[in-house]
Amino acid sequence: MTDTALTGGRRSSLTDKSRISVASIVGAAFGFSLILLAVLLKSGNFSAFLSLEGFMIVVGGTMAVAFMSFQANHVIEALEGIGLMFKKANVTHENLYRDMKDIISWARITKEKGLRGLENQVEDQGINDPFVRYGLDMVVSNYNPEDVHSMMETAAEAYYERDTTPARILMAMASHAPAFGMVGTLIGMVIMLGNFKGDMSGIGSGLAISLLATLYGVLTARMIYMPAAAKIMQKQDNLRFRNYLITEGMVMLVANRSARYIQDRLNSFLAPGLHHMVED
Amino acid sequence: MTDTALTGGRRSSLTDKSRISVASIVGAAFGFSLILLAVLLKSGNFSAFLSLEGFMIVVGGTMAVAFMSFQANHVIEALEGIGLMFKKANVTHENLYRDMKDIISWARITKEKGLRGLENQVEDQGINDPFVRYGLDMVVSNYNPEDVHSMMETAAEAYYERDTTPARILMAMASHAPAFGMVGTLIGMVIMLGNFKGDMSGIGSGLAISLLATLYGVLTARMIYMPAAAKIMQKQDNLRFRNYLITEGMVMLVANRSARYIQDRLNSFLAPGLHHMVED
Amino acid sequence: MTDTALTGGRRSSLTDKSRISVASIVGAAFGFSLILLAVLLKSGNFSAFLSLEGFMIVVGGTMAVAFMSFQANHVIEALEGIGLMFKKANVTHENLYRDMKDIISWARITKEKGLRGLENQVEDQGINDPFVRYGLDMVVSNYNPEDVHSMMETAAEAYYERDTTPARILMAMASHAPAFGMVGTLIGMVIMLGNFKGDMSGIGSGLAISLLATLYGVLTARMIYMPAAAKIMQKQDNLRFRNYLITEGMVMLVANRSARYIQDRLNSFLAPGLHHMVED
Amino acid sequence: MTDTALTGGRRSSLTDKSRISVASIVGAAFGFSLILLAVLLKSGNFSAFLSLEGFMIVVGGTMAVAFMSFQANHVIEALEGIGLMFKKANVTHENLYRDMKDIISWARITKEKGLRGLENQVEDQGINDPFVRYGLDMVVSNYNPEDVHSMMETAAEAYYERDTTPARILMAMASHAPAFGMVGTLIGMVIMLGNFKGDMSGIGSGLAISLLATLYGVLTARMIYMPAAAKIMQKQDNLRFRNYLITEGMVMLVANRSARYIQDRLNSFLAPGLHHMVED
Amino acid sequence: MTDTALTGGRRSSLTDKSRISVASIVGAAFGFSLILLAVLLKSGNFSAFLSLEGFMIVVGGTMAVAFMSFQANHVIEALEGIGLMFKKANVTHENLYRDMKDIISWARITKEKGLRGLENQVEDQGINDPFVRYGLDMVVSNYNPEDVHSMMETAAEAYYERDTTPARILMAMASHAPAFGMVGTLIGMVIMLGNFKGDMSGIGSGLAISLLATLYGVLTARMIYMPAAAKIMQKQDNLRFRNYLITEGMVMLVANRSARYIQDRLNSFLAPGLHHMVED
Repeated sequence: MTDTALTGGRRSSLTDKSRISVASIVGAAFGFSLILLAVLLKSGNFSAFLSLEGFMIVVGGTMAVAFMSFQANHVIEALEGIGLMFKKANVTHENLYRDMKDIISWARITKEKGLRGLENQVEDQGINDPFVRYGLDMVVSNYNPEDVHSMMETAAEAYYERDTTPARILMAMASHAPAFGMVGTLIGMVIMLGNFKGDMSGIGSGLAISLLATLYGVLTARMIYMPAAAKIMQKQDNLRFRNYLITEGMVMLVANRSARYIQDRLNSFLAPGLHHMVED
Repeated sequence: MTDTALTGGRRSSLTDKSRISVASIVGAAFGFSLILLAVLLKSGNFSAFLSLEGFMIVVGGTMAVAFMSFQANHVIEALEGIGLMFKKANVTHENLYRDMKDIISWARITKEKGLRGLENQVEDQGINDPFVRYGLDMVVSNYNPEDVHSMMETAAEAYYERDTTPARILMAMASHAPAFGMVGTLIGMVIMLGNFKGDMSGIGSGLAISLLATLYGVLTARMIYMPAAAKIMQKQDNLRFRNYLITEGMVMLVANRSARYIQDRLNSFLAPGLHHMVED
Repeated sequence: MTDTALTGGRRSSLTDKSRISVASIVGAAFGFSLILLAVLLKSGNFSAFLSLEGFMIVVGGTMAVAFMSFQANHVIEALEGIGLMFKKANVTHENLYRDMKDIISWARITKEKGLRGLENQVEDQGINDPFVRYGLDMVVSNYNPEDVHSMMETAAEAYYERDTTPARILMAMASHAPAFGMVGTLIGMVIMLGNFKGDMSGIGSGLAISLLATLYGVLTARMIYMPAAAKIMQKQDNLRFRNYLITEGMVMLVANRSARYIQDRLNSFLAPGLHHMVED
Repeated sequence: MTDTALTGGRRSSLTDKSRISVASIVGAAFGFSLILLAVLLKSGNFSAFLSLEGFMIVVGGTMAVAFMSFQANHVIEALEGIGLMFKKANVTHENLYRDMKDIISWARITKEKGLRGLENQVEDQGINDPFVRYGLDMVVSNYNPEDVHSMMETAAEAYYERDTTPARILMAMASHAPAFGMVGTLIGMVIMLGNFKGDMSGIGSGLAISLLATLYGVLTARMIYMPAAAKIMQKQDNLRFRNYLITEGMVMLVANRSARYIQDRLNSFLAPGLHHMVED
Repeated sequence: MTDTALTGGRRSSLTDKSRISVASIVGAAFGFSLILLAVLLKSGNFSAFLSLEGFMIVVGGTMAVAFMSFQANHVIEALEGIGLMFKKANVTHENLYRDMKDIISWARITKEKGLRGLENQVEDQGINDPFVRYGLDMVVSNYNPEDVHSMMETAAEAYYERDTTPARILMAMASHAPAFGMVGTLIGMVIMLGNFKGDMSGIGSGLAISLLATLYGVLTARMIYMPAAAKIMQKQDNLRFRNYLITEGMVMLVANRSARYIQDRLNSFLAPGLHHMVED
């Protein structure tokens, strides 16, 4: 049991290659290659799907509205979230089990050596996770259980509120992208129709290029903004769930509950197969 | 009264053929055959409805986005959920009645032989349902009613959260499928229009094939992803309702309430026709 | 004051012709005849609006998905709900007034003759409404007010959950019908376009027939499934509101409150014009 | 301070011309004339926009579904709500200030002359507003503060539930109108296409007339049903907010709080600029 | 620590140029220029995108419905909100830190010199922020903590309700604008089709001009109304969050809590990096 258990491996997320979700990438690559293969089977002519103007309108419009709607630093954070899509979620049910084991061990130390002993132990472990550190600070400050509960609940909700902002921005972008795809198609059609003089032969390629903007709008929304937002939401939902587990644990530490009681209470957060059985 | 009552027949769900919902299959088959008959009446040419490219784009795109948006193991669980669509829901109002009878019998045993007697009885029954087992563990640990209530409530909500994840993924896929149907149609139209030189005669079959992707998108969303998601949601909604009934029952066991009181309280969960009348 | 007041006239709903809402039927008939008249004015050719294939796809598809998404018995219940659309809601604000008068009279009896007297009175009245009967059973069992409140609240919510299931199914069907309308139109267009050889003259009637499926999808959703769902929801919303009034009343019966207090408390549920003024 | 303050001027709403919102009418008229001017600029031919059949289908269909979905008296109430769209909201922040002043003056009277004195004063004032009258009745009945709070809260919610029904019906009509616009266009296109024999020259006017139904559907939804619903919702939201202020005030009257305390508490409901400063 | 900390710099928002969000403007400008460049690349003919009639219908219709749906003064406030889009949000996490420091310093003053001392200090500081001033008034009135909590909570919610009204109006306008874009296109098509006599050569420019209304509807919704609404919502969400921090702080002032306790409690509102560490 190290502090990695509590930080959910965050510290090492940049260096540890195993954090990349292989299954996700294989699944996504398989899906993409099906689409590309379909295009190949039908025409083999990928250049027919390139439209610089359509791309500029869809991406430019989506970006412009994002920067007008939200604070610039939050938009940049949201764009960075796209790159993190293939990372594995770092709070899994297995990690919850490790968090729970830590709390139970702290309960034992508190029973044996008091809050002073817990404080020393925590300093030795060198906790990096800010939520756990805040919670332990409140515990060793010896506030009463109700105070610790309301402090940590406020903190958990404030974390959630702050850290889901990029997901909300990406969802807004996912709604704007198809609208600007339509804008690009309308602009293309207006130009084409303005030049139309009853000759049907030229209308085909003009319409084809116009439709590409709609295609870009749908594809960027569905394959970039929505998955990125979904990944962030899951990560934060899991983190909030875990923070409530930590909160319950800290409250029981302060209330000086037995390790057995803490185990039984925290087991309610875990899937049945992961229930912790203390060695009495 | 056996443990099958409490596990809702889960153990036997793979072997017991009666768990397949005959009425659902008949209803679905009737509906499907109406659609096929309609096609037959109109043209009789089913091959006109096959488009490998359209199929690859719709299914490939939906899969790719699912694997990008959610953890791979959850997506696979969601895809397995499609196969379980024709299973009967295993928590029905009749099962609730059996759960209630079990709880009342445990209340009698507790009154007569104490928690020790309940523990022996439960061991003899060999409860398989993890939620009931967790609850009974808390009861025989003799925690106070409030603790048992909050522990089991947390557990019921955590079960619900975990077990409805496949339904949420299927709903997302139901929203992506028509979008990729549109993508397939747009791709087909761009290729067709790019080759269009004012000759209307070739445009018909090209457009027909393009439209098939839209057809596939709508059909997979409406006939696969949405019904599968709906079935999972109902099953889990029923299970949560039942778990709250179990929770109330366990709390009353701990509070050492009379069998009559438990019956009257739990009857509030049941349809009037199923109300349990204890033999005094 | 008879038990009809409490059952909201349910017993007689099959025989009593006055339960049919005349105003609703007149309003609906007027609207429908406007639409038919419009068709008549434009072409007078109703047979142009018949498409067996379109009908089979829209109705068959909607049914198939309903039976795949929900338990067969609930789907059948939902389909029966369509026939009840023109029934009058049996819980009106006027009925609430009668429920309230019953409760006040029971409070007087309880004051005079005790719970035993109430029990006799209730047996003589022969209450049919299961919710009221359950409540009175809890009252004469002499549970404390908090218990009666939580029992009846659970029962009211469980009734509501069970009885709004058909409305949720009808709403799902209202969303599926236009989608299958689109499916029918796409199928028709694929067949038509597959046979298209540059001759515009044949395209009109083919397209006309294809569009009929869309028309059927929108019309069945808007004129059958949605109104039926809306009627059920209103009926159940009213019933839940009334059940909360009954719950409050029963709790006050148990708490042995004065008739005056019960009247003042229950008046808060009624429209000002219907407030009950006790004869002191 | 008269009872007009408390009734929000409702009594005089039929005779008082100043209750009509001039700014709203000017704004709406300006917008409408822009649209009409645009039509005039483009063609000047308003008769091209008239289609009796389209009008019958859109208005008839919307009405038929409304009468099938809701009780006839509620639909009529909703239709009347359309006419009240240009009335000024009668609960403004300024009126809240007057309600607050009334409550403070009643608190002074209660302090000086007791509940009997309050009863006399209230009879002299002749309160017309049913919510205030109900509240004052509960106050002079000398129920305890918790009872008055729950009675008035139930009443406020029941008022809100009843009085927002027309808005819910209008919102449903706003969703049905464009659907029936589409129905009208589909009917028109089916007739036109059924008569189509490859001659493009006749298709223009047929399509133009068909599209008018869509135009009517969108326009009635956006310019009639939605604004009328929005106005009702605002009025009722404001009324509920005001009723909660009245409720808080009545509870403090019963609890025999000082005028200063009541002022400070009720100021929390008002915009800062309207805070009441008692003359000590 | 000045009162600017508490007012969030509001006083100076008109004169202080640094309040304009440079990053937002650069981002938006970049996006817009991409769209304009795309048009330039495709045709270079901007005049093809001007349609006075389309503009009148889209803007006139949106305005007319806004004035019919909402009170005129609120609509004007909403229109003014469009101009404030490029302002920086004035409640940032950094400002929360300053609010917290103020509250801690007031706690020290209260400990040393009592509520009288706090009152003098507050008068010297000259607080402009109405919410803080209201809170401090309640604190120096020496109400008990529960009263201060419920007063300030009501006030925070009432502020939020009032100040998000413009955002709700702008969201309604964002939904109306594309609908009136469709109205404009339908009007244009009806006129064009009414004049159509089988000659395809004139149809191009007529259709192009008709489509411009749709383009205007989408663009005004996405680039004006929605970003303006989003900016207001964020500002008010942040303000509400901050007002809850202030509320907690005031309650602890009244409860005479230690500066250390107030710091630990309020830290739960802040991002971990901004946690305040008191100098003991």
